[in-house]
Parts: sequence; structure tokens; C-alpha cells
Amino acid sequence: MTDPLFENVTLIGIGLIGSSLARVIRAKGLARHVTIATRSAPTLEAARALDLGHAYTLSNAEAVADADLVIVSVPVGASEAVAREIGPHLKRGAIVTDVGSTKASVVRQMQPHIPETAHFIAGHPIAGTEQSGPESGFAELFEGRWCILTPTPGTDADAIARLKAFWEACGSTVEEMDPEHHDLVLAIVSHLPHIIAYNIVGTADDLETVTKSEVIKYSASGFRDFTRLAASDPVMWRDVCLHNRDAILEMLARFSEDLASLQRAVRWGDGDKLFDLFTRTRGIRRSIVEAGQDTDVPNFGRNVLKQDAKAGSS
Amino acid sequence: MTDPLFENVTLIGIGLIGSSLARVIRAKGLARHVTIATRSAPTLEAARALDLGHAYTLSNAEAVADADLVIVSVPVGASEAVAREIGPHLKRGAIVTDVGSTKASVVRQMQPHIPETAHFIAGHPIAGTEQSGPESGFAELFEGRWCILTPTPGTDADAIARLKAFWEACGSTVEEMDPEHHDLVLAIVSHLPHIIAYNIVGTADDLETVTKSEVIKYSASGFRDFTRLAASDPVMWRDVCLHNRDAILEMLARFSEDLASLQRAVRWGDGDKLFDLFTRTRGIRRSIVEAGQDTDVPNFGRNVLKQDAKAGSS
Repeated sequence: MTDPLFENVTLIGIGLIGSSLARVIRAKGLARHVTIATRSAPTLEAARALDLGHAYTLSNAEAVADADLVIVSVPVGASEAVAREIGPHLKRGAIVTDVGSTKASVVRQMQPHIPETAHFIAGHPIAGTEQSGPESGFAELFEGRWCILTPTPGTDADAIARLKAFWEACGSTVEEMDPEHHDLVLAIVSHLPHIIAYNIVGTADDLETVTKSEVIKYSASGFRDFTRLAASDPVMWRDVCLHNRDAILEMLARFSEDLASLQRAVRWGDGDKLFDLFTRTRGIRRSIVEAGQDTDVPNFGRNVLKQDAKAGSS
Repeated sequence: MTDPLFENVTLIGIGLIGSSLARVIRAKGLARHVTIATRSAPTLEAARALDLGHAYTLSNAEAVADADLVIVSVPVGASEAVAREIGPHLKRGAIVTDVGSTKASVVRQMQPHIPETAHFIAGHPIAGTEQSGPESGFAELFEGRWCILTPTPGTDADAIARLKAFWEACGSTVEEMDPEHHDLVLAIVSHLPHIIAYNIVGTADDLETVTKSEVIKYSASGFRDFTRLAASDPVMWRDVCLHNRDAILEMLARFSEDLASLQRAVRWGDGDKLFDLFTRTRGIRRSIVEAGQDTDVPNFGRNVLKQDAKAGSS
């Protein structure tokens, strides 16, 4: 084992992201000692049972006392409380980062509570699945994915470089941007898609004319794709909506305008307009596959044949 | 090989569905002779090169002369023209069916042109991928999937039974419903999801504040899921919109109402309302996985690790 990047790493929050970090740190020897903290006793016990770290505590303050790197992986609405707790206990030179899906709000919440003697750099690994909890993590989650850091002006360049090296060691490629731009980008590529997915699943659930069992049986014709995103962690996504409000409202407004125009084309039978839009969007898919951000195997290459056998008997 | 279900099958249209039918018919010996017709000469040549049938023609009229079963797999807007062409040439007792995504319109378009001496039964296999063309088909496409038949009152029971046996031999489970109910069900499980996906991809494509390369780079955070549906065949989907107008407008109205209410919750910071919706939708996902209609492997089990390696070098 080569020298680890950090002596002591503390993970606050041990859900999908936190537990994936614990696993990749162990797998690649990125720290000598890992302390795990979470406010939920059952979650802490689950982390212990999974042997995710070396020390376990319910106290965030205690957890950071020796830490060289603190990674906060909690719903963004909890960021300020965590920063307030850990601020006074941080070691000189410690780096504090997070993994939240909104960045301007996290910077506003956390930065003021981190002392001058430590370094705060907000971050966001663009990686995840629809699952949550310490059992759902895996060491390869960050491999080949992007990680965005949003340091504010004046942040110590050496601290940024060390955090960048950490994410690269996890398998990610690191980009820097300012928090506001991050929030605008994520509003369209992530927040709007999740909100739309939650919304359409809700609409389907409310129908009186089509039964729920029909929605489920015939979901492979399109609907099922949306249900994956709509199965994501409700607390995390509630907080994203509350903490990236302006960018989300802006994207929702644009989406609704476009949808009204598309609806008009359906109502008035404007086939050319429909055809033009439906053709233009194919190009984006091609670009995403070419950029290595999705598979080009049909239906995402998912294998449901074995489970599908049940269809015949239900 | 057991006795085939039909002596002569004619496939009109040889895209994803038609060519998958050709492949499963051959793989399972479901017909003695397969005739392939399409109005596009290059597509016909592609089908011949793939050795998908026994006879090839650009004339639909010629193609059906000896057919016991005719399966029309064309965009629904072309249904009437095809029915008009083949009607006068159908053999006594021939069964004519289709695979279109809307059914009331297809019945209206085709039924009047099929003579009393033949049997018309509209149908819709709930199977597909985002790809199109004769190269994209595969014999297992219908395995473990549902196929909906929408016979009108008075349809010959024996003809229905024979068509049902055919789809079962392709691996599907057959359900019957009336055309109008089919169109309502598919409007929510398939048509609305596709329209929403096309729309959101269009909205992203139009942004001035976020670059297209950012949309593509960070698409794994949600957006990429929508791009798969939005890469579907534009002609097919234009026709679906034009031919299931009323049910689609009804579902769009409901969706937009719900979205306006969700948008209000974001604007006013109504976290409880957001949390309630985001929790409710998880249950639907669970039901779909339990019904064997989707995989429960995270991220659909898609494997982009190899391609993702490119992310680091771009």
C-alpha cells in the first residue's frame, strides 16, 4: 500500500454516497483511519455491521476532532446544523467538503461555521442510484463519473489540489465551477428530471379511469423508466427542491412553456412541428452515448427476462 | 418441427417490430413461408440481406395474395392506406392484424377496408426499444411481454384464438380490451412519458445559460434516462400523437395541473407536500419490479464503466 492521501477521514452521513466513500477509501487505501458518524443509531449499527470504518459515533463534534478530511453526506437541508456542530472542533488545516446536489445553499449554510484555520470546499460527485442507505453503497460508484467542486474565491489552492486528488483516486474526473452555475446546470440535468418523474408517477397513481394494476402491467411501454427516478430518496429530494428553488422554478417555467406549445401541436394536428422536435432530440441521445455517459444497448441493456416470466402467471 | 401455426405469413413493414416478428417466426417455426413487404426499396433490400423471409416485394397487394396471417407494422398514420391496398386481395379466411400503439384510430382506419370474408383484429405488443429499422429487431423482443388485442364485437372467436396462439408462441401473454380503453391506458403508460421525455430534452437543448456540452457531461444525474425515450422513431411518435389526440390531451391536462401544484409547493417551500408525493411514488416502483416489468438492479443495471473511461480524457 502506498502512502494514503489522508491520515484520518471522517464521514458524516453513511447513506448511499457516504458508504460508497467508505468502501472506496478501504479498497484503494486512501486513508489510514476512517471515523463514521450519523445521527441515527440504527444506521450507525448497520454501518458497524458492514464494517465500513474504524470508529463509530453519534456525535459529529467528537467525530471530527482528529480528522484531516471531513466529508459531509447528508440531505442538503441538514448542512447548516452539521457545520455548526463541527466548526469549533475542527483541527487546524482540516478540509471540510460535502456531496450535496445543490451548492449555493450549502456554501451559504456551511461556510460561515468553518473557522479560518480549516478549509471549506463544497463538492458534488455526479454519481448515484435510486437506492439509499448504508447497504446500497459500492466502491465503484464514482468510477468514470464527474465530480464538481465549487470553491469560493480565496480558497487555499493546496487544499483544493488535495481534495481533487482524493476524488481522482476514487475514479472521478474533477471540474471546478462557481456554485451558482452548478445549481443552474444541475437544475436542468438532474433536478427537473427528478421532479418531472415524481410528478408523472403521481399523475398515473391518481387516475380513476385506468387501474393501478394496468399502469403496472403495461409500464414497460415507457412509464417504468420514470419510476426509477421517482423511487429516489424523498428527504434528499425534498431538500433539493427547497434549496435550489430559483433555478428549479426557472427550469419548470421553461419546461411548461414548451409543453404548452407541444400540447397545442397535438390539439391542432401539427405533425410537422411534432416531427421536428422528435427528430432534434435524437441527436442529444447520440451525444450522450458518444460521451460515455450512457450505454447504447437497447433498453439500457436491462435484463428482465427472468422476472418477466412472472407476467405469464399473474 | 411441429406443424406451424400458419402456412403463409405476410409482414407489411419490416422495422423493429416487423423484423423481430420475422426472426421469432423463423426461430420457433411459426409459419412455413414468410413474405415481406415494405414501401421503401432500401429497407426491402436490407431485409433481404438479413435473410428475414422467403419472398420480398414492394407491393402490399401482391404480398397478401396467399397469406393466412397478415401483420401490418407501420406507423399508425399509414394504416388506412395499407388496408385500402390489401383489402381486395385478401384470401378467404385470412386474419389481418397490426401492432400499432393506438387502437381506436387503427380500427376506424382499417376495419372498413377488410372484406367480410377475412378477419380483422387490431393488436398491440407492449414491446420495443428506442431503436428502429430491420437491423434492430431480435427474436426475443416479445418474450415475457404483454400483447393486447382489441377485437370489435362480432369478431370470429376462432380467428381471435388463432391470433392469440400466435402471440403466445412468440412468448407473450395476451389480454383483450376494447380499443378506447387501450388508448386511455397507453396514453398514460406510454404516450405521455414519451411526450414528456421529448419535451424535456427539447427544453434542455434550448438553454442559453447552460451549454449543451454541460448537459451531456452531467446527464448521468437524471437527464440521460429521458433521452432514451426521446430517441425513439419520430414518424411513429408523430403518428401516435395525431391518432390518440383526445386521450393524450386529457393526460397532458392532468399532468400539467399536478405539475403546477408541485411548482407552487417548490415556490412556497411546502416541504411536507413534496415529501408526501416523493414517498408515495416509491411504492409504484416497487410494484413494477415485483410484477416483473423492470429490473431492481440499481441504474437499470446498465454498464457504462468502459465507456465512462472516456470521461477522463474528454
